[in-house]
Amino acid sequence: MKINVITVSRQFGSGGRTVARMIAQKLGWAYYDKEIIEQLALKSGFDPDYIREHSEYSASNRFAYSFVSPYVGSMSVNDYLWCEQRKLILELAEKGPCVIVGRCADHILKDHHDCLNLFIHAPLALRAKRVVELYGESETKPQKRVREKDKKRAANYLYYTDREWGKAENYHLCLDSGAMGIERIVNTVVNMVQNPAPKEDFFYHL
Amino acid sequence: MKINVITVSRQFGSGGRTVARMIAQKLGWAYYDKEIIEQLALKSGFDPDYIREHSEYSASNRFAYSFVSPYVGSMSVNDYLWCEQRKLILELAEKGPCVIVGRCADHILKDHHDCLNLFIHAPLALRAKRVVELYGESETKPQKRVREKDKKRAANYLYYTDREWGKAENYHLCLDSGAMGIERIVNTVVNMVQNPAPKEDFFYHL
Repeated sequence: MKINVITVSRQFGSGGRTVARMIAQKLGWAYYDKEIIEQLALKSGFDPDYIREHSEYSASNRFAYSFVSPYVGSMSVNDYLWCEQRKLILELAEKGPCVIVGRCADHILKDHHDCLNLFIHAPLALRAKRVVELYGESETKPQKRVREKDKKRAANYLYYTDREWGKAENYHLCLDSGAMGIERIVNTVVNMVQNPAPKEDFFYHL
Repeated sequence: MKINVITVSRQFGSGGRTVARMIAQKLGWAYYDKEIIEQLALKSGFDPDYIREHSEYSASNRFAYSFVSPYVGSMSVNDYLWCEQRKLILELAEKGPCVIVGRCADHILKDHHDCLNLFIHAPLALRAKRVVELYGESETKPQKRVREKDKKRAANYLYYTDREWGKAENYHLCLDSGAMGIERIVNTVVNMVQNPAPKEDFFYHL
Protein backbone atom coordinates (compact mmCIF):
# COMPACT_ATOMS: atom_id res chain seq x y z
CA MET A 1 0.00 0.00 0.00
CA LYS A 2 1.19 3.49 -0.78
CA ILE A 3 2.17 5.51 2.30
CA ASN A 4 0.14 8.73 2.54
CA VAL A 5 0.65 9.85 6.12
CA ILE A 6 3.77 9.81 8.30
CA THR A 7 3.57 10.41 12.05
CA VAL A 8 6.73 11.37 13.92
CA SER A 9 6.98 10.75 17.66
CA ARG A 10 10.26 11.85 19.20
CA GLN A 11 12.35 12.09 22.32
CA PHE A 12 12.98 15.72 23.31
CA GLY A 13 16.14 17.03 21.63
CA SER A 14 16.45 14.09 19.23
CA GLY A 15 15.90 16.19 16.12
CA GLY A 16 12.62 14.41 15.38
CA ARG A 17 10.89 17.64 14.45
CA THR A 18 13.69 18.51 12.00
CA VAL A 19 13.43 15.01 10.53
CA ALA A 20 9.66 15.45 10.07
CA ARG A 21 10.02 18.85 8.39
CA MET A 22 12.74 17.62 6.05
CA ILE A 23 10.73 14.54 5.04
CA ALA A 24 7.69 16.72 4.27
CA GLN A 25 9.86 19.12 2.24
CA LYS A 26 11.51 16.34 0.23
CA LEU A 27 8.19 14.65 -0.53
CA GLY A 28 6.33 17.93 -1.10
CA TRP A 29 3.77 16.91 1.56
CA ALA A 30 1.89 19.05 4.07
CA TYR A 31 3.59 19.38 7.48
CA TYR A 32 1.56 19.68 10.67
CA ASP A 33 3.12 20.68 13.95
CA LYS A 34 2.42 24.19 15.25
CA GLU A 35 -0.31 24.39 12.60
CA ILE A 36 -2.33 21.97 14.74
CA ILE A 37 -2.05 24.32 17.72
CA GLU A 38 -3.11 27.30 15.63
CA GLN A 39 -6.12 25.50 14.17
CA LEU A 40 -7.06 24.19 17.60
CA ALA A 41 -6.87 27.72 19.01
CA LEU A 42 -9.17 28.97 16.27
CA LYS A 43 -11.68 26.17 16.85
CA SER A 44 -11.66 26.18 20.63
CA GLY A 45 -11.03 29.82 21.43
CA PHE A 46 -8.20 28.85 23.80
CA ASP A 47 -4.93 30.71 23.75
CA PRO A 48 -2.25 29.00 21.59
CA ASP A 49 0.24 29.10 24.51
CA TYR A 50 -2.23 27.31 26.74
CA ILE A 51 -2.82 24.65 24.10
CA ARG A 52 0.93 24.23 23.52
CA GLU A 53 1.43 23.55 27.21
CA HIS A 54 -1.54 21.21 27.61
CA SER A 55 -1.87 19.28 24.38
CA GLU A 56 1.24 17.10 24.74
CA TYR A 57 2.07 17.36 28.42
CA SER A 58 -1.22 17.24 30.20
CA ALA A 59 -1.25 13.87 31.97
CA SER A 60 0.82 15.13 34.88
CA ASN A 61 -1.95 17.58 35.82
CA ARG A 62 -4.57 14.91 36.19
CA PHE A 63 -4.21 14.05 39.83
CA ALA A 64 -6.24 16.99 41.10
CA TYR A 65 -8.96 16.33 38.55
CA SER A 66 -9.31 12.74 39.65
CA PHE A 67 -11.25 14.00 42.72
CA VAL A 68 -13.99 15.41 40.53
CA SER A 69 -16.98 13.09 40.47
CA PRO A 70 -17.42 11.32 37.15
CA TYR A 71 -21.20 11.54 37.61
CA VAL A 72 -21.53 15.25 37.04
CA GLY A 73 -20.82 14.77 33.33
CA SER A 74 -17.94 17.19 33.41
CA MET A 75 -14.76 16.97 31.33
CA SER A 76 -11.31 18.36 32.03
CA VAL A 77 -10.07 21.05 29.65
CA ASN A 78 -7.21 18.74 28.74
CA ASP A 79 -9.59 15.97 27.75
CA TYR A 80 -11.67 18.43 25.74
CA LEU A 81 -8.53 19.60 23.92
CA TRP A 82 -7.54 15.98 23.32
CA CYS A 83 -10.91 15.23 21.68
CA GLU A 84 -10.74 18.31 19.46
CA GLN A 85 -7.14 17.58 18.54
CA ARG A 86 -8.05 13.99 17.70
CA LYS A 87 -10.83 15.11 15.36
CA LEU A 88 -8.50 17.62 13.71
CA ILE A 89 -5.77 15.01 13.13
CA LEU A 90 -8.28 12.61 11.56
CA GLU A 91 -9.46 15.43 9.26
CA LEU A 92 -5.91 16.42 8.30
CA ALA A 93 -5.01 12.82 7.43
CA GLU A 94 -7.97 12.70 5.05
CA LYS A 95 -7.04 15.96 3.31
CA GLY A 96 -3.95 14.58 1.56
CA PRO A 97 -0.39 13.30 2.05
CA CYS A 98 1.12 14.81 5.20
CA VAL A 99 3.64 14.50 8.04
CA ILE A 100 2.28 14.99 11.58
CA VAL A 101 4.54 15.65 14.59
CA GLY A 102 3.71 14.18 18.03
CA ARG A 103 0.24 14.42 19.62
CA CYS A 104 -0.31 10.62 19.75
CA ALA A 105 -1.10 10.80 16.00
CA ASP A 106 0.28 7.28 15.56
CA HIS A 107 -2.44 5.96 17.87
CA ILE A 108 -5.17 8.25 16.55
CA LEU A 109 -4.48 6.99 13.01
CA LYS A 110 -3.98 3.35 13.99
CA ASP A 111 -6.72 2.16 11.62
CA HIS A 112 -5.26 4.07 8.67
CA HIS A 113 -3.25 1.43 6.88
CA ASP A 114 -1.53 4.00 4.69
CA CYS A 115 0.13 5.58 7.73
CA LEU A 116 3.81 5.04 8.62
CA ASN A 117 4.67 5.66 12.28
CA LEU A 118 8.17 6.79 13.22
CA PHE A 119 9.85 7.20 16.61
CA ILE A 120 13.06 9.23 16.70
CA HIS A 121 15.42 8.94 19.68
CA ALA A 122 19.04 9.65 20.55
CA PRO A 123 21.40 9.15 23.48
CA LEU A 124 20.67 11.43 26.45
CA ALA A 125 24.03 13.26 26.43
CA LEU A 126 23.67 14.22 22.76
CA ARG A 127 20.13 15.45 23.29
CA ALA A 128 21.10 17.53 26.31
CA LYS A 129 23.87 19.16 24.26
CA ARG A 130 21.52 19.85 21.37
CA VAL A 131 18.82 21.34 23.60
CA VAL A 132 21.30 23.87 25.05
CA GLU A 133 22.52 24.78 21.56
CA LEU A 134 18.97 25.26 20.29
CA TYR A 135 17.16 26.77 23.27
CA GLY A 136 19.97 28.09 25.47
CA GLU A 137 20.70 27.40 29.12
CA SER A 138 17.99 27.35 31.80
CA GLU A 139 17.90 26.93 35.57
CA THR A 140 17.35 23.20 35.22
CA LYS A 141 20.33 21.12 34.12
CA PRO A 142 19.98 20.07 30.46
CA GLN A 143 19.89 16.31 31.10
CA LYS A 144 17.17 16.81 33.69
CA ARG A 145 15.21 19.09 31.32
CA VAL A 146 15.33 16.43 28.63
CA ARG A 147 14.32 13.64 30.99
CA GLU A 148 11.43 15.66 32.44
CA LYS A 149 10.00 16.50 29.02
CA ASP A 150 10.22 12.86 27.94
CA LYS A 151 8.55 11.74 31.15
CA LYS A 152 5.63 14.09 30.48
CA ARG A 153 5.30 12.89 26.90
CA ALA A 154 5.37 9.27 28.05
CA ALA A 155 2.71 9.92 30.72
CA ASN A 156 0.49 11.73 28.24
CA TYR A 157 0.85 8.95 25.67
CA LEU A 158 0.07 6.25 28.22
CA TYR A 159 -2.97 8.14 29.51
CA TYR A 160 -4.56 8.64 26.09
CA THR A 161 -3.45 5.52 24.22
CA ASP A 162 -2.92 2.93 26.98
CA ARG A 163 0.37 2.08 25.31
CA GLU A 164 4.00 2.52 26.24
CA TRP A 165 5.74 5.50 24.64
CA GLY A 166 9.01 4.55 22.94
CA LYS A 167 8.30 0.81 22.86
CA ALA A 168 9.47 -0.44 19.46
CA GLU A 169 6.38 -2.49 18.64
CA ASN A 170 4.15 0.61 18.77
CA TYR A 171 5.86 2.11 15.71
CA HIS A 172 6.81 0.85 12.25
CA LEU A 173 10.26 2.35 12.37
CA CYS A 174 12.33 3.63 15.34
CA LEU A 175 15.56 5.41 14.52
CA ASP A 176 18.49 6.64 16.60
CA SER A 177 19.37 10.06 15.17
CA GLY A 178 22.55 10.10 17.26
CA ALA A 179 23.91 7.08 15.48
CA MET A 180 22.35 7.43 12.05
CA GLY A 181 22.31 11.18 11.51
CA ILE A 182 19.30 13.22 10.53
CA GLU A 183 20.09 13.37 6.82
CA ARG A 184 20.29 9.59 6.52
CA ILE A 185 17.06 9.04 8.44
CA VAL A 186 15.30 11.43 6.08
CA ASN A 187 16.71 9.67 3.02
CA THR A 188 15.78 6.23 4.39
CA VAL A 189 12.17 7.24 4.98
CA VAL A 190 11.79 9.11 1.68
CA ASN A 191 13.22 6.08 -0.09
CA MET A 192 10.67 3.84 1.65
CA VAL A 193 7.78 6.05 0.57
CA GLN A 194 8.98 6.21 -3.02
CA ASN A 195 9.69 2.47 -3.30
CA PRO A 196 6.81 0.32 -2.06
CA ALA A 197 7.61 -3.16 -0.70
CA PRO A 198 7.90 -5.86 -3.36
CA LYS A 199 4.68 -7.83 -3.75
CA GLU A 200 6.29 -11.24 -3.24
CA ASP A 201 7.34 -10.36 0.29
CA PHE A 202 5.99 -12.59 3.03
CA PHE A 203 4.06 -10.01 4.98
CA TYR A 204 3.70 -6.30 4.54
CA HIS A 205 0.98 -3.75 4.16
CA LEU A 206 2.82 -0.51 3.48
CA MET B 1 32.17 5.55 11.01
CA LYS B 2 31.92 2.50 8.80
CA ILE B 3 29.55 -0.17 10.12
CA ASN B 4 31.36 -3.49 10.60
CA VAL B 5 29.01 -5.48 12.82
CA ILE B 6 25.22 -5.75 12.78
CA THR B 7 23.31 -7.35 15.65
CA VAL B 8 19.75 -8.50 15.09
CA SER B 9 17.39 -8.88 18.04
CA ARG B 10 13.93 -10.06 17.10
CA GLN B 11 10.47 -10.95 18.30
CA PHE B 12 9.70 -14.64 17.75
CA GLY B 13 8.15 -15.21 14.31
CA SER B 14 8.99 -11.72 13.04
CA GLY B 15 11.37 -12.95 10.35
CA GLY B 16 14.33 -11.32 12.10
CA ARG B 17 16.57 -14.32 11.50
CA THR B 18 15.71 -14.26 7.77
CA VAL B 19 16.46 -10.53 7.70
CA ALA B 20 19.84 -11.16 9.35
CA ARG B 21 20.80 -13.94 6.93
CA MET B 22 19.78 -11.91 3.88
CA ILE B 23 21.74 -8.85 5.06
CA ALA B 24 24.84 -11.01 5.57
CA GLN B 25 24.41 -12.59 2.14
CA LYS B 26 23.96 -9.26 0.36
CA LEU B 27 26.96 -7.71 2.10
CA GLY B 28 29.09 -10.85 1.83
CA TRP B 29 29.61 -10.78 5.60
CA ALA B 30 29.93 -13.66 8.08
CA TYR B 31 26.65 -14.75 9.69
CA TYR B 32 26.54 -16.06 13.26
CA ASP B 33 23.49 -17.75 14.69
CA LYS B 34 23.62 -21.52 15.17
CA GLU B 35 27.38 -21.25 14.57
CA ILE B 36 27.63 -19.66 18.03
CA ILE B 37 25.93 -22.66 19.60
CA GLU B 38 28.23 -25.08 17.77
CA GLN B 39 31.37 -23.20 18.79
CA LEU B 40 30.12 -22.93 22.36
CA ALA B 41 29.46 -26.68 22.42
CA LEU B 42 33.00 -27.34 21.23
CA LYS B 43 34.50 -25.01 23.84
CA SER B 44 32.36 -26.02 26.79
CA GLY B 45 31.70 -29.68 26.09
CA PHE B 46 27.96 -29.14 26.63
CA ASP B 47 25.44 -30.65 24.25
CA PRO B 48 24.31 -28.21 21.50
CA ASP B 49 20.63 -28.86 22.35
CA TYR B 50 21.26 -27.95 25.98
CA ILE B 51 23.01 -24.74 24.93
CA ARG B 52 20.22 -23.87 22.49
CA GLU B 53 17.68 -24.15 25.26
CA HIS B 54 19.71 -22.25 27.87
CA SER B 55 21.64 -19.56 26.03
CA GLU B 56 18.69 -17.31 25.15
CA TYR B 57 15.96 -18.46 27.49
CA SER B 58 17.67 -19.07 30.76
CA ALA B 59 16.45 -16.32 33.05
CA SER B 60 13.21 -18.15 33.85
CA ASN B 61 15.17 -20.99 35.48
CA ARG B 62 16.90 -18.76 37.98
CA PHE B 63 14.50 -18.93 40.86
CA ALA B 64 15.74 -22.29 42.15
CA TYR B 65 19.34 -21.18 41.88
CA SER B 66 18.70 -18.10 43.95
CA PHE B 67 18.69 -20.34 47.06
CA VAL B 68 22.31 -21.33 46.50
CA SER B 69 24.61 -19.39 48.79
CA PRO B 70 26.65 -16.78 46.93
CA TYR B 71 29.53 -17.43 49.36
CA VAL B 72 30.49 -20.86 48.06
CA GLY B 73 31.90 -19.24 44.90
CA SER B 74 29.66 -21.33 42.67
CA MET B 75 28.17 -20.27 39.35
CA SER B 76 25.05 -21.51 37.59
CA VAL B 77 25.57 -23.35 34.33
CA ASN B 78 23.52 -20.65 32.62
CA ASP B 79 25.80 -17.92 33.90
CA TYR B 80 28.86 -19.93 32.84
CA LEU B 81 27.39 -20.31 29.34
CA TRP B 82 26.61 -16.59 29.27
CA CYS B 83 30.24 -15.73 30.09
CA GLU B 84 31.59 -18.08 27.43
CA GLN B 85 29.09 -16.84 24.88
CA ARG B 86 30.01 -13.24 25.68
CA LYS B 87 33.72 -13.93 25.11
CA LEU B 88 32.94 -15.71 21.86
CA ILE B 89 30.80 -12.83 20.55
CA LEU B 90 33.54 -10.32 21.37
CA GLU B 91 36.03 -12.51 19.49
CA LEU B 92 33.74 -12.91 16.47
CA ALA B 93 33.18 -9.14 16.25
CA GLU B 94 36.96 -8.65 16.07
CA LYS B 95 37.43 -11.23 13.33
CA GLY B 96 35.77 -9.21 10.57
CA PRO B 97 32.45 -7.81 9.30
CA CYS B 98 29.56 -9.96 10.51
CA VAL B 99 25.88 -10.21 11.40
CA ILE B 100 25.03 -11.73 14.81
CA VAL B 101 21.52 -12.96 15.72
CA GLY B 102 20.17 -12.54 19.26
CA ARG B 103 22.12 -13.49 22.40
CA CYS B 104 22.21 -9.92 23.81
CA ALA B 105 24.97 -9.17 21.28
CA ASP B 106 23.78 -5.53 21.09
CA HIS B 107 24.61 -5.11 24.77
CA ILE B 108 27.81 -7.19 24.68
CA LEU B 109 29.11 -4.98 21.85
CA LYS B 110 27.84 -1.70 23.31
CA ASP B 111 31.33 -0.15 23.31
CA HIS B 112 31.95 -1.09 19.68
CA HIS B 113 31.08 2.08 17.84
CA ASP B 114 31.11 0.34 14.47
CA CYS B 115 28.17 -1.84 15.50
CA LEU B 116 24.60 -1.26 14.27
CA ASN B 117 21.89 -2.76 16.48
CA LEU B 118 18.57 -3.80 14.93
CA PHE B 119 15.33 -4.96 16.54
CA ILE B 120 12.80 -6.67 14.26
CA HIS B 121 9.17 -6.98 15.33
CA ALA B 122 5.74 -7.58 13.80
CA PRO B 123 2.10 -7.67 14.90
CA LEU B 124 1.24 -10.73 17.03
CA ALA B 125 -1.36 -12.20 14.63
CA LEU B 126 1.07 -12.19 11.72
CA ARG B 127 3.80 -13.79 13.79
CA ALA B 128 1.49 -16.52 15.05
CA LYS B 129 0.50 -17.31 11.45
CA ARG B 130 4.11 -17.40 10.34
CA VAL B 131 5.21 -19.64 13.21
CA VAL B 132 2.58 -22.26 12.29
CA GLU B 133 3.61 -22.10 8.62
CA LEU B 134 7.28 -22.52 9.50
CA TYR B 135 7.24 -24.91 12.46
CA GLY B 136 3.80 -26.54 12.24
CA GLU B 137 1.08 -26.78 14.87
CA SER B 138 1.79 -27.67 18.51
CA GLU B 139 -0.29 -28.30 21.62
CA THR B 140 0.04 -24.66 22.64
CA LYS B 141 -1.97 -22.12 20.64
CA PRO B 142 0.29 -20.17 18.25
CA GLN B 143 -0.32 -16.72 19.81
CA LYS B 144 0.50 -18.13 23.24
CA ARG B 145 3.64 -19.83 21.88
CA VAL B 146 4.83 -16.56 20.40
CA ARG B 147 4.10 -14.59 23.57
CA GLU B 148 5.83 -17.15 25.80
CA LYS B 149 8.99 -17.17 23.71
CA ASP B 150 9.11 -13.37 23.70
CA LYS B 151 8.59 -13.30 27.45
CA LYS B 152 11.58 -15.59 27.95
CA ARG B 153 13.76 -13.52 25.65
CA ALA B 154 12.74 -10.35 27.47
CA ALA B 155 13.48 -11.89 30.88
CA ASN B 156 16.86 -13.17 29.72
CA TYR B 157 17.76 -9.78 28.24
CA LEU B 158 16.73 -7.93 31.39
CA TYR B 159 18.68 -10.32 33.61
CA TYR B 160 21.95 -10.03 31.69
CA THR B 161 21.81 -6.44 30.44
CA ASP B 162 19.62 -4.65 32.98
CA ARG B 163 17.77 -3.13 30.04
CA GLU B 164 14.30 -3.49 28.61
CA TRP B 165 14.04 -5.79 25.58
CA GLY B 166 12.21 -4.15 22.67
CA LYS B 167 12.54 -0.59 23.98
CA ALA B 168 13.39 1.60 21.00
CA GLU B 169 16.21 3.53 22.65
CA ASN B 170 18.23 0.33 23.19
CA TYR B 171 18.68 -0.14 19.43
CA HIS B 172 19.74 2.04 16.51
CA LEU B 173 16.96 0.86 14.26
CA CYS B 174 13.71 -0.98 15.08
CA LEU B 175 11.65 -2.21 12.15
CA ASP B 176 8.17 -3.69 11.80
CA SER B 177 8.54 -6.51 9.28
CA GLY B 178 4.76 -6.85 9.11
CA ALA B 179 4.38 -3.34 7.76
CA MET B 180 7.64 -2.90 5.87
CA GLY B 181 8.29 -6.36 4.47
CA ILE B 182 11.49 -8.32 4.85
CA GLU B 183 12.94 -7.41 1.45
CA ARG B 184 12.62 -3.68 2.12
CA ILE B 185 14.15 -3.94 5.60
CA VAL B 186 17.13 -5.75 4.11
CA ASN B 187 17.54 -3.13 1.38
CA THR B 188 17.24 -0.28 3.89
CA VAL B 189 19.99 -1.70 6.12
CA VAL B 190 22.30 -2.66 3.25
CA ASN B 191 21.86 0.84 1.86
CA MET B 192 22.79 2.31 5.26
CA VAL B 193 25.96 0.25 5.45
CA GLN B 194 27.01 1.15 1.93
CA ASN B 195 26.26 4.88 2.31
CA PRO B 196 27.77 6.38 5.48
CA ALA B 197 26.04 9.41 7.03
CA PRO B 198 27.10 12.73 5.51
CA LYS B 199 29.83 14.42 7.55
CA GLU B 200 27.96 17.70 7.96
CA ASP B 201 25.14 16.03 9.86
CA PHE B 202 24.53 17.33 13.36
CA PHE B 203 25.16 14.16 15.27
CA TYR B 204 26.04 10.68 14.16
CA HIS B 205 28.71 8.14 14.74
CA LEU B 206 27.87 5.34 12.30
